[in-house]
Amino acid sequence: MKVVIVGGGFGGLNAAIGLRSADCEVTLIDRENYHLFQPLLYQVATGSLSPANICAPLRNVLRRQKNATVLQGDVVDFDFEQREIVLKDRRVPFDKLIVAAGMTHSYFGRNAWQQLAPGLKSISEATEIRARVLSAFEQAEWEQDEVERRRLMTFVVVGGGPTGVELAGTLADLAHHTLAKEFRHIHPQTTRVVLVDAESHVLTQFPESLSVKAGEALEKLGVEVRTGLRVSDIDEAGVTLGDERIDAGTVLWAAGVTASPLGEKLATAAGVETDRAGRTLVQPDLSLAGHPDVFVIGDLAHLEDEEGKLIPGVAPAAIQEGKYVAKLIRKRLKGREVSPFRYRDLGSLATIGRAEAVARLGRLQFTGHLAWLLWLFIHLMQLVAFENRLLVLLQWTWSYITRGRSARLITTHPHRPKSAASSEPRPTPREHRPTRPIASEPQLVQSQCE
Amino acid sequence: MKVVIVGGGFGGLNAAIGLRSADCEVTLIDRENYHLFQPLLYQVATGSLSPANICAPLRNVLRRQKNATVLQGDVVDFDFEQREIVLKDRRVPFDKLIVAAGMTHSYFGRNAWQQLAPGLKSISEATEIRARVLSAFEQAEWEQDEVERRRLMTFVVVGGGPTGVELAGTLADLAHHTLAKEFRHIHPQTTRVVLVDAESHVLTQFPESLSVKAGEALEKLGVEVRTGLRVSDIDEAGVTLGDERIDAGTVLWAAGVTASPLGEKLATAAGVETDRAGRTLVQPDLSLAGHPDVFVIGDLAHLEDEEGKLIPGVAPAAIQEGKYVAKLIRKRLKGREVSPFRYRDLGSLATIGRAEAVARLGRLQFTGHLAWLLWLFIHLMQLVAFENRLLVLLQWTWSYITRGRSARLITTHPHRPKSAASSEPRPTPREHRPTRPIASEPQLVQSQCE
Repeated sequence: MKVVIVGGGFGGLNAAIGLRSADCEVTLIDRENYHLFQPLLYQVATGSLSPANICAPLRNVLRRQKNATVLQGDVVDFDFEQREIVLKDRRVPFDKLIVAAGMTHSYFGRNAWQQLAPGLKSISEATEIRARVLSAFEQAEWEQDEVERRRLMTFVVVGGGPTGVELAGTLADLAHHTLAKEFRHIHPQTTRVVLVDAESHVLTQFPESLSVKAGEALEKLGVEVRTGLRVSDIDEAGVTLGDERIDAGTVLWAAGVTASPLGEKLATAAGVETDRAGRTLVQPDLSLAGHPDVFVIGDLAHLEDEEGKLIPGVAPAAIQEGKYVAKLIRKRLKGREVSPFRYRDLGSLATIGRAEAVARLGRLQFTGHLAWLLWLFIHLMQLVAFENRLLVLLQWTWSYITRGRSARLITTHPHRPKSAASSEPRPTPREHRPTRPIASEPQLVQSQCE
Repeated sequence: MKVVIVGGGFGGLNAAIGLRSADCEVTLIDRENYHLFQPLLYQVATGSLSPANICAPLRNVLRRQKNATVLQGDVVDFDFEQREIVLKDRRVPFDKLIVAAGMTHSYFGRNAWQQLAPGLKSISEATEIRARVLSAFEQAEWEQDEVERRRLMTFVVVGGGPTGVELAGTLADLAHHTLAKEFRHIHPQTTRVVLVDAESHVLTQFPESLSVKAGEALEKLGVEVRTGLRVSDIDEAGVTLGDERIDAGTVLWAAGVTASPLGEKLATAAGVETDRAGRTLVQPDLSLAGHPDVFVIGDLAHLEDEEGKLIPGVAPAAIQEGKYVAKLIRKRLKGREVSPFRYRDLGSLATIGRAEAVARLGRLQFTGHLAWLLWLFIHLMQLVAFENRLLVLLQWTWSYITRGRSARLITTHPHRPKSAASSEPRPTPREHRPTRPIASEPQLVQSQCE
C-alpha cells in the first residue's frame, strides 16, 4: 500500500515516522530537501543561528526507515479520479494521501505589500530579512542626510503574534547591543523598532495578564509597542497607520496567514469546503468528507475541539495530528478503528528578546527568566537531529554570553525599497563628481586617530 | 591621513589591522559585509560547514579598532587625478591606497563555461555548488532512464590544484559514505568522481613525490584521476577531453584564475603593466611605478622573489604583504624607510578527503594523518574569530565521527544543465498523463515493507 505525504514539516514528518513499522510504502514529498524547525527561524533572520542549525535533511532523518522514500519536488495538483499526485514533472500514485502543506502569508489582498514587507516562513525569507536588516545599518552608516538616516534606522514589524514579538525583541537586542560598538558614524542604540498590532494587546492567544507582561517586557527592551492600530498602507519609504505615518527602511510582516495555494487545489479536487483563511474542513478523524483515504493535517486543517474552538496552527497540534493519522492507518491495516482525533493543549510559549518569555502550561503561567529557560529547554529537546541540538545549544550559549551574532552575513542582495527622496539624484559639489565624497559627511561619532 | 583599502580578504584585512596604532583613518571597502576564510570554502560546497562558520563580519573583526571604518560597496574605478575611489554610488578620497581585490576564475576565454561549470571563490558560489551536487542525487533517485541516472551521478572536477583536489576528495567521501544509506533507488557508492588536469600530476606546486602520493590518496578515495588531459569542451550534458567524452550531471571548475576586473581598471588608471593573468606588476615595496602611495597586495600583485619566481597567490603571502604595507605606512608616517618586501615561504598544505593531506614545511615533507592534523591545526588557528574557531572545531569533530554533513541544504534553486535526452518530452503511457508514474520506475534497492 502506497502512502504519500505532501509536506515535510512537523505534521508530515511525524506522520512518516509514525508509519515506520506499518506494512506500506511511504513517500514524503517536499519542495525543499530539509525539515525546517520553524520556531527558531527568527534567530536566522536576526543572525544568531545559521540555516543549517535549524534544518535537518529529510533523507537523513528518515535514512533508517526502510519503508520511507523522500522526493524533492513541487506538487501542483491532485487527481482523485486516478488517485495520483501531480508534480511539475511527474505523477505519483497513492492509496492513502496525507496533505500537510501548511500556510503562507496573508497580505489581506494587498499583494504588492509582499515585496515591501517580507514575512518569515522559509529559510530564503529568513536570509532575505537578515540581508535587509543588516544592509539598512550599512547604508545608514554612510548616509549623509539626517532624515534618511533616521528612516533607515527605523524598523516596523507588523503583527503582534509570537513571530512578530520574537522578531521585534531580537531586532531591538541586535541594534541596541550587538551592533552598538561596530559603527563609526551612527549610534545603533538609537534604532527605532516599532511593533504594530490591530488588537489591544500583543500575543492575544495568551491569557491577558501574560499579554500585558509581554508588552511591558518588549518596551523594556526598547521596542515601541503600538497596539490598536491597523496598517492602512505600506510603500517603499515606510508604513501608514490611519492618520499616522512611520518612515521606515525595513518593514517586516507577521500579521496574517492563509492556506498554501495547494489547499485550494485540494479542496477543489476533493469537493470539500474551506474556511475564510483557506483551511480545509476535515472530519473528526482528519479525513476529507467523501474521501476516507485522504487526510489533511497541520496548519492547513480546520478542525474544532469539543468547545467549538479551532485547533490552533502550532507545532504541537501538527505533531499530534501527524502521529494520529499514522496510527489510524496502522490500525486500519489491521482491520481496527480508532476514535476521533483529540487535541491535547500543552500550552503556549513565546520568547521576548534575550532572556524573557511568557509561558502558559495548562493553568500555570510563567514569565521572565524561568519562562525563558522553559522555552529554551522545550525547543532544544524538540530539534529533530541530535547533532543540531548540541551545536545549537553551544552556538546559543556563546551568543548569549558574548551578545555576538556570528551568522550576521548578507548573502543575498536585498531589493531594498528606497525613499523617494534618496533615489533622486542630488546636486554634486563638483561637476565631474558623480557622487558625493565621504569626507564631507557628518561624523556622529568622533573617529579616534591615535 | 586617509588610508583606503579595497578588499577585505587576507591581504586587506591584515593591512587594516596592521594600521591599528597608526595616526590615520582607515576605510576598508568590500562588496560583502564579511571576511571569508577561503581555504575552507570547499567544506561549505560539500555541506560540512555553514557559511557563517567560515565568515567573520568585517565590522565585528574591526569593532575595537577606532581608526577603522568599514564600507560595504562596489568599487568600479580609480580616479588618480582626484585621488578618489569611485564606487557605484559615491566617491571616497584617499591619501594612501591599498588594493587587495584578488583574483577570479579564468575560463580561458570560454565564458559560456562559467554557467555550466561554476568555480569556487565566494559563498554564493559555494552554496550554488552545494545545491547542484545535492540536486543531482535528488534527481538521480527518481530518474527512470539508466543512462541519464549514470550521467547525473557523474561529477567532473576540472583542475588538479588544491581546490580541485579538495573538492574531488570530499565529493567522493560525501557520495560513497555520507549519502550511502539515504537513497532507495540509487547506490550513491557507485558515484563517479573524475578529476581532470592538463599536467602530468595533480598539485604541481608540491614536490613531485608529494604530488604522486596525493594522486594515489585520491584514487584510494575512489576518485578517477585523469592527468595529462585538456578539456576541449563543456556543454549541458558533460565534458569533452580531446577524443574522450564524459557525460556528467555536474561539472566544477578549479582550473585557472585571472585578475579581478578591478585589476585592469587599476592598471589603466595608474598606467602600469600587468602580467598575462592580469596581475598588476608592483615595485619591490609593493607600490605601483610612479604612484608611491598606491599599493597592490595579495593575489592581484605580481612580484618575483630573489630567484625570479612569482610569489604565489596563497593566503600566507597575502597576509605577509598586508602586514608589510601597514608597517611601511606606519614607518613613513614617522619619517623612516623600510627595506623591500621579502616573502617567507612557510610551505604548502593540501587536504585530500577525510583524513589525508600532503604538506611541505620548508624542506620537510609529510603525508597521511600527520599532514592532515597539521593542516587542521594550522587552519583552525588562523580562523579570524575565536567563536568560529571553537564552533568549527566542534562541528568538524562531530562530522568526522558521524561522517554526517549537517549543512546539506539546497538553498538556491540551481540552474542544472540537463542532457538533451532528458529535456525532450517522452511518450506517456496514457493520454491524460502529462508525466510518468513513479510506480513503473525500476527499484534498484528493494523497498523493505515490514
